[in-house]
Amino acid sequence: MRSVQEHLAACLAAVGPQPPLEVVLADAVGCVLAEDVLATRDLPLADVAALDGYAVRAADVATAGPAAPVALRVLDEIRAGSVDPTRLPAGSCVRIASGAPLPLEADAVVPVEQTDRGTAKVEIRTAAAHGENVRPRAQDVRDGEVVLRAGERVGARQVALLAAVGRGRVTVHPRPRVVVVSVGDELVEPGATARPGQVYDANGHALAAALQDVGVATYRVAAVPDQRGPLRETLEDQLVRADLVVTTGGLSHGSNDTVKEVLGPLGTVRFDNVAMWPGRQLGVGHVGDGTPILALPGDPVAAQVAFEVFVRPAVRAMAGYADLYRPTVRATVTTGWYSPAGRREFVRVTLAGSPQEGYRATPAGAPGTLLLSALARSNALAVVPEDLTEVREGTALSCLVLDA
Amino acid sequence: MRSVQEHLAACLAAVGPQPPLEVVLADAVGCVLAEDVLATRDLPLADVAALDGYAVRAADVATAGPAAPVALRVLDEIRAGSVDPTRLPAGSCVRIASGAPLPLEADAVVPVEQTDRGTAKVEIRTAAAHGENVRPRAQDVRDGEVVLRAGERVGARQVALLAAVGRGRVTVHPRPRVVVVSVGDELVEPGATARPGQVYDANGHALAAALQDVGVATYRVAAVPDQRGPLRETLEDQLVRADLVVTTGGLSHGSNDTVKEVLGPLGTVRFDNVAMWPGRQLGVGHVGDGTPILALPGDPVAAQVAFEVFVRPAVRAMAGYADLYRPTVRATVTTGWYSPAGRREFVRVTLAGSPQEGYRATPAGAPGTLLLSALARSNALAVVPEDLTEVREGTALSCLVLDA
Repeated sequence: MRSVQEHLAACLAAVGPQPPLEVVLADAVGCVLAEDVLATRDLPLADVAALDGYAVRAADVATAGPAAPVALRVLDEIRAGSVDPTRLPAGSCVRIASGAPLPLEADAVVPVEQTDRGTAKVEIRTAAAHGENVRPRAQDVRDGEVVLRAGERVGARQVALLAAVGRGRVTVHPRPRVVVVSVGDELVEPGATARPGQVYDANGHALAAALQDVGVATYRVAAVPDQRGPLRETLEDQLVRADLVVTTGGLSHGSNDTVKEVLGPLGTVRFDNVAMWPGRQLGVGHVGDGTPILALPGDPVAAQVAFEVFVRPAVRAMAGYADLYRPTVRATVTTGWYSPAGRREFVRVTLAGSPQEGYRATPAGAPGTLLLSALARSNALAVVPEDLTEVREGTALSCLVLDA
Repeated sequence: MRSVQEHLAACLAAVGPQPPLEVVLADAVGCVLAEDVLATRDLPLADVAALDGYAVRAADVATAGPAAPVALRVLDEIRAGSVDPTRLPAGSCVRIASGAPLPLEADAVVPVEQTDRGTAKVEIRTAAAHGENVRPRAQDVRDGEVVLRAGERVGARQVALLAAVGRGRVTVHPRPRVVVVSVGDELVEPGATARPGQVYDANGHALAAALQDVGVATYRVAAVPDQRGPLRETLEDQLVRADLVVTTGGLSHGSNDTVKEVLGPLGTVRFDNVAMWPGRQLGVGHVGDGTPILALPGDPVAAQVAFEVFVRPAVRAMAGYADLYRPTVRATVTTGWYSPAGRREFVRVTLAGSPQEGYRATPAGAPGTLLLSALARSNALAVVPEDLTEVREGTALSCLVLDA
């Protein structure tokens, strides 16, 4: 049997960061930068007004106060988006909008509220120091400066900066496209009528949702019967749009080993019993032209656990993240159970508590059962080490936090 | 001046949860349920095999062991998706796939590994108790049971359960559609050439990204000049697809009050100076046929802060969440600064530390400046109360955590 660590290492070795691609800014949102972004101009590009008011020479208003206003001639109005290329003569000013560049020789802005709002002539009722209410050129970013580094995620605050320095396109690791294929003769689509013996395909929908939460593009294929022909055709069809294929089911110990039989000739996939519970048989390798493939068990609880333990880190690696894993916390369990020897057990638990008072983990459903109702109310996976067979009330376990 | 709390209350009062809508399962992902979901069948629907093996009568194999195998006749093979409607006679068994329903009278499953894998006759090498390796009917969900409650978010684990109980459609608060409009004569699209005085539109892109991170559908309109006609036309055009409109800019104290002038006749929007920094003038109300609108400042740092403080909670309320706010932590600041009197200041900080050792907040850039470069490297907003004017090294402040 392979250890969980060995199989995880194999999954991560099978994938790599998506090749860098230049995309428009809107498509970069949520992606990881694949370039250091250099500013190609100053931000702001000139000394600009920090608020609406009058651009003045500070020296002209040095003596101004509420009781001793200074009158200045208003030469012009500089609205946002325009510039005044003339020099400001002494004794004069211009009305200026927040964000507009100051005329030459102006070195301060008096807020409109500190004036009589005159249009030809204005009374200035406060002194202004050199540079007051002015955002100096390059205060935010200097031409040539690295504004964001490769490896940073492009979120809203990074987009604001990229846009402000004029970047309409940026090079990122593009969102991986993941094709999800559920295999099983028994599977029918939710909403359809299930005959006796049939079950609804939970894995296709649940894995697509889990991938969507990671932020990747997902294509869910309707469940494929456990037969070589249809599975082979489906995989061949889907490879054109897949950066990664995830299958569930079709790994029966019994007469049907469809996934193994089909994947054998299509690529280099190895299947192992992995020392974990739930889930046991797992596959990893490549198909077609080197597209990575991860094969998960058919049981929907086991598939979700395998997703969290193996697929999510692999997908994050493809998306270019350095940090691949869910946060973990230590929690004491509120009730005991027996855990299988020689296997790492992932128990669906509800976490309660806080960093200050500590966390408590309560199994959602009996740990040995595979209940979707329990999975749906859990918010973490408690990890029982391979050599621990008796978990007691109060035992401290590491827990993967599933809901932030 | 209105307080931050008053303006937030007005924003939340202007919106409400999206009217419930029945959608297909794939479209429900990431939405909040607007119905209690009842199971309309048991899960599993019958006693099913928990693993691949032989379905037996436990009484027949009570004496079986490695040294004393019991031979049974193999009547049939039940593959996944099929059923065997016959009763199992004593002394016989059926080969059964994991998940397949047991034949009548069978009450245990012997794992294939504990047999000689016979096809006509099989040697059973272990005893099996009544119910062993069987998932009893309704073990997971009972017909008529509430499986998920209104108000729960539909994530991967909830989708697995909904699919498994056969729900192809579900009633949710659909994703709000938010239209983002930046207003300003000075704005040009990133990637285009900016003439002197022009600046790149950061707000449109950054707010669209921020909304995308909240999980809503966003339509970004290219920046609109600060003129009544174009702004009115844009708003009228966009209202058909907007559940919420967010504007930035066009709120100048100076000669241009375009947003106010246009919104006046179009709806009922009030504008207030809100006692906060950055950002001051903010609008809230309705336009057209009652579409809520939130007006934010034009400065991109102020707009992002206003997004976090007002828009994000409002959008989450529309999406049906009960929990509207970012998590907060207390952090001690690593350096002091002066904070404006009578205003709640939101300072962009980088948080470091842990729940155990405590958190430290370091301002990203001087708190009084509005730098996008500092915003991009911050991961939290430290909140300085209205009456605190001197923040000292070691002062403990509440911080909104922006990055999970």
